[in-house]
Amino acid sequence: MDTFKSEKALVVFSGGQDSTTCLYWALEHFGQVHTLTFGYGQKHSLEIECAKEIANRAGVDFRYMDMSFIGSLGSNSLTDTSIKMDDSKPEGSFPNTFVPGRNLFFLSTAAVYARENGIRHIITGVSQTDFSGYPDCRDSFIRSLNVTLNLAMDSQFIIHTPLMWLDKAQTWEMADRLGVLDLVRNDTLTCYNGIKGDGCGHCPSCKLRRDGLEKYLKSREKSCCSTSEE
Amino acid sequence: MDTFKSEKALVVFSGGQDSTTCLYWALEHFGQVHTLTFGYGQKHSLEIECAKEIANRAGVDFRYMDMSFIGSLGSNSLTDTSIKMDDSKPEGSFPNTFVPGRNLFFLSTAAVYARENGIRHIITGVSQTDFSGYPDCRDSFIRSLNVTLNLAMDSQFIIHTPLMWLDKAQTWEMADRLGVLDLVRNDTLTCYNGIKGDGCGHCPSCKLRRDGLEKYLKSREKSCCSTSEE
Repeated sequence: MDTFKSEKALVVFSGGQDSTTCLYWALEHFGQVHTLTFGYGQKHSLEIECAKEIANRAGVDFRYMDMSFIGSLGSNSLTDTSIKMDDSKPEGSFPNTFVPGRNLFFLSTAAVYARENGIRHIITGVSQTDFSGYPDCRDSFIRSLNVTLNLAMDSQFIIHTPLMWLDKAQTWEMADRLGVLDLVRNDTLTCYNGIKGDGCGHCPSCKLRRDGLEKYLKSREKSCCSTSEE
Repeated sequence: MDTFKSEKALVVFSGGQDSTTCLYWALEHFGQVHTLTFGYGQKHSLEIECAKEIANRAGVDFRYMDMSFIGSLGSNSLTDTSIKMDDSKPEGSFPNTFVPGRNLFFLSTAAVYARENGIRHIITGVSQTDFSGYPDCRDSFIRSLNVTLNLAMDSQFIIHTPLMWLDKAQTWEMADRLGVLDLVRNDTLTCYNGIKGDGCGHCPSCKLRRDGLEKYLKSREKSCCSTSEE
C-alpha cells in the first residue's frame, strides 16, 4: 500500500505500545507523519514525556493538546450537581475518568487538527480484538464516525486502523516486522502505574502486554525453528 | 406526537431564538426537560445569563458547561502556517473562534450528559434552511452523528431537530403557536453585539431575525384578514 506515499498522516498518539506501532506503520506508508497526544486528567505527565521522546526520535511533528475537559464529563461531575465540572481531576486511574465515547472526542479533535493542517489521513490504534468491551473501539463505530466527520466538515478524511483486527501478540509481530520491537518494548508506556517498558508487571495493561509479547516471542521461536528444520 | 410524553429530553440551549423555541417545543412533547448551555470563548456572559433566566422561568433544569477548549481548536492556535478554512463563516463575527464541526462537539457532549442522566432524547435547533453554509447544520450530518453516537456509547439516542426545515419566519410562527412569541422576541439573545431582544439591529444575526419576524407578522396579518373575510 504505497498509494499515499506522498501524503501526510496524523497519528493519534499516546506513547503506548499500540500507537507507537501505528506511528511506525504510518512512517512506512505516508510521506509525512504528524502526532497528536491528548492529556485528559488521568494521564501521568510521564506518559506525555514518553510520547514526546518517541516522536522526536522518530523525527515526526509532535503536538500535545490538553483535553482535561473530557475528564469532567464523567458520571461523577455531571450527575452530582455539587461537583463542579471544570476541575474534576481524579487521582488514581479509571473509575472516575472513563468517559463514554472518549474516542469520539479524540478523533473529532484529531479531525479538526488534521483539517487545519491539510491532512486527510488519520491513524488510530484502536482494536476491536482486545477491547471489545469499549463500544468506541469497534470497527462499526470508527466507520460511522468517519462518515460523520466527513459530513461535519465537508471533508474526505480516511481513518486508518491498522490494529483493528489484531490481538496483542499480532501487534508485537507488526512492531517486529517494522523493526521497532525493542523500541516499543523498552520506550513505550502503557502501565497504569506509570512505569515505562515492561511496567509494574501486575496491572491489567501490563498483563495484556506481557502475555501478548510472550505469545508472539514463542510463535516466532517456533516458526524460526521450523524454518531451520526444513 | 405525544409518544414521548412520559420521557425526559435534553435541549442544547443557547438562550437564543432557535433554541428557546426548541425548549418550548420540548415542553410540549416531553414530560421532563433539561437544558445544557455551552460556553466556548466568544460567548458573551450575558448570553449565558439570558439562557439561565429563560430556563428558570420555564421551570426546567439548567446546566452550563465550559467548552472553551473548543476555542483553542481554531485556526490561530493550531495552525502555525497557512490559515485557510472559513468559507462559510458569518461576516464580521467570530473570525478566530469558528470551529469546523462545532456541533459535533456540542452534540457529542450533550449525548454524554444525556446518557449520564438517563435521557435518550436530544433536541437541537439547527436548521438546514437558514444555515446551509455550515455543513454541521445539515440534516445528513445530524443523522449520521445520531448513528455514530449510538455506536460510540451503545445507546439509543434520538436527536430531534424541530427547526431543520423551517426558515426564520416559520420559526417565529412556531414560537407563536407555542404561545411564546413575545418571550422569544423580548428575552432571547441572538445579537452578535450582545443586545437582548431586537438587538443592535444591524449585525447579520439581527437582520436574519428581524426579516423573519417581519415576514411572519405580515403573513399572520394576511391570514388573519383573509379568515375574517371568509
